[in-house]
Amino acid sequence: MLQFRLTNQTNAARVGELTLTHGTVQTPVFMPCASLATVKACPAHLVETAGIEMLVCNAYHLWLRPGHERVREMGGLHNFMGWNHPILTDSGGFQVFSLARPKDITEEGVHFRSHISGEALLLTAEKSLEIQNALGSDIAMIFDECAPYPAAKEYVENSLQRTLRWSRRSKAAHQNPRQALFGIVQGGVYEDLRRQSAEGTVEIGFNGYAIGGLSVGESKEQMLTALEASLPYLPENQPRYVMGVGTPLDILECAERGVDMFDCVLPTRMARHASLMTWDGALKINRLEYAGSDEPLDATCRCGTCQRYSRGYLRHLFACKEAAAWQLLSEHNLHFYAQFMVELREAIKAGTLNQLRQRIGAWTQREK
Amino acid sequence: MLQFRLTNQTNAARVGELTLTHGTVQTPVFMPCASLATVKACPAHLVETAGIEMLVCNAYHLWLRPGHERVREMGGLHNFMGWNHPILTDSGGFQVFSLARPKDITEEGVHFRSHISGEALLLTAEKSLEIQNALGSDIAMIFDECAPYPAAKEYVENSLQRTLRWSRRSKAAHQNPRQALFGIVQGGVYEDLRRQSAEGTVEIGFNGYAIGGLSVGESKEQMLTALEASLPYLPENQPRYVMGVGTPLDILECAERGVDMFDCVLPTRMARHASLMTWDGALKINRLEYAGSDEPLDATCRCGTCQRYSRGYLRHLFACKEAAAWQLLSEHNLHFYAQFMVELREAIKAGTLNQLRQRIGAWTQREK
Repeated sequence: MLQFRLTNQTNAARVGELTLTHGTVQTPVFMPCASLATVKACPAHLVETAGIEMLVCNAYHLWLRPGHERVREMGGLHNFMGWNHPILTDSGGFQVFSLARPKDITEEGVHFRSHISGEALLLTAEKSLEIQNALGSDIAMIFDECAPYPAAKEYVENSLQRTLRWSRRSKAAHQNPRQALFGIVQGGVYEDLRRQSAEGTVEIGFNGYAIGGLSVGESKEQMLTALEASLPYLPENQPRYVMGVGTPLDILECAERGVDMFDCVLPTRMARHASLMTWDGALKINRLEYAGSDEPLDATCRCGTCQRYSRGYLRHLFACKEAAAWQLLSEHNLHFYAQFMVELREAIKAGTLNQLRQRIGAWTQREK
Repeated sequence: MLQFRLTNQTNAARVGELTLTHGTVQTPVFMPCASLATVKACPAHLVETAGIEMLVCNAYHLWLRPGHERVREMGGLHNFMGWNHPILTDSGGFQVFSLARPKDITEEGVHFRSHISGEALLLTAEKSLEIQNALGSDIAMIFDECAPYPAAKEYVENSLQRTLRWSRRSKAAHQNPRQALFGIVQGGVYEDLRRQSAEGTVEIGFNGYAIGGLSVGESKEQMLTALEASLPYLPENQPRYVMGVGTPLDILECAERGVDMFDCVLPTRMARHASLMTWDGALKINRLEYAGSDEPLDATCRCGTCQRYSRGYLRHLFACKEAAAWQLLSEHNLHFYAQFMVELREAIKAGTLNQLRQRIGAWTQREK
């Protein structure tokens, strides 16, 4: 089940409500990665407290551990992981392609070895949908090839044609009526291929559309160009999801162009590397200058971590490699993203995206 | 500051109220270890939620990282770690002895090398109290030698005499009037030496008395004999603390003989090794048999973990080495201990210690 209602629109940017089997979320929405059915270092009840409304889990990882049939037997992914809000599952394509050699990619699917057991496995469109149907996420993704960057145009075109064939097979294999299914636009950094992929995907017809193959090494300009070459061919009244993006500024730039959904490992990965997200940019809490600071991480933040612990204490926990540090910084960074999305939606409604862009100016500086 | 009021007594067992600078706790009390100013994998607010009322921090560890002067500058240990309840600090003796060779132990103190930097350091009674005074714990401990087990009687006697001299020096060095100071009874497994140490320590005079040198490898019978040889020489109206003990059954046995305070790494160490504490004994959550279980860890438990997550999910997190597993199991095990202490105090009041001993019979079985 999927209902999408646009409530505000300013130029191309949109605010909406996405209703799925496990609840309604406000869009643009940010979905942290919970690949193995947990956000890293942060149990579901703390993710909830941080203000997060939707997660991304991963079909490949959950196929290997604990197994999708196991999850189905335990009442599905939501019940299994104690998260009673919407979940999107990625098809596993992105993961298995990183494990496969070019010759292992066939029309049937991708041959690869499990990164856990070494077992030879084959992931196909049908298998990915079988896994995602069993997991019971709110949104399943078609099985696609995310072409590497850089890649020759001929490779990317062949790849996107194969992804279109896999998209049809994915749609045919999809069996869970409680689950929406999204198509994925590929085409690399080639504008005409992006259009070709978008039109082909929309022709097949899905509940929503992702733009894949971005944030894989191309420049920011290339990313936005590829995005702009895809969006005009996607239906206005259906949700659009840019996969694997990104920093607050990247999210703002994409939302400004009409994207509704985002996922990224950044908040939790940065937390594990001692990077705290603030409106003034990333702050490396492990620097010596914070050792004596009894200030909160971020004086404006209302997360559980900032309400109780100082910069100096967090730095101490990192210096001692205490796991509590990962949890506390992850919770803060997730709360920052949740709060950023609230501000983003408000800015779209108020037509003040430029002011919000200035407010996160430090994130621009650091990316140069 | 320290006030101790016994509210119930059944035979030797006692229930009381211990009032310290940062609050009042019910005794017998269990204090989890937060050596580095954090309970491992469990931030202070989650320790609080688990029902824990008092913690043990470590002077040696905090001297090295982040440094006691740093902690003092940041308003003391409570402010530093976000824990506004009582804290006891261990003197660091137990840690430095494990790093020192016999010839490094002199009348002045213990010469050893930092396990972090390799730097040559000297810990003395005066230094330990300087550290503890700066940390500002509610209870400081004298600097003692915890003799190894087994150890010849002559060694243990010389050691306890030195500990008595260090106890006097510790008392003379103690400068923080907001902090109580406890003496420590040594004497190994020798009953006459235990009496000698207890009488000598009480003669010096402290706010409370610990029984040290137990749980270092001796049998359970030897532990209880050494305890029984110490307790009659300690004042009835002052708190008694058995250091480093232990399992629920060990705690019950000691409380039955009149002990008021306990600390142990067991709940959090067991959690990190996938051992869940229940009234029926320890349960290894990483066993295959739990993989498909959607039962809570413990159906009778009201901790945050049992309210939301299943055995099968916790097993999955452990199999994937996810840090969230350590936090969730630590929280459960701490809650179990807190709950066990509530039941222990009730059983002492009601004179039903034998029934409680039967209820935790599984803990006996596993120790055989």
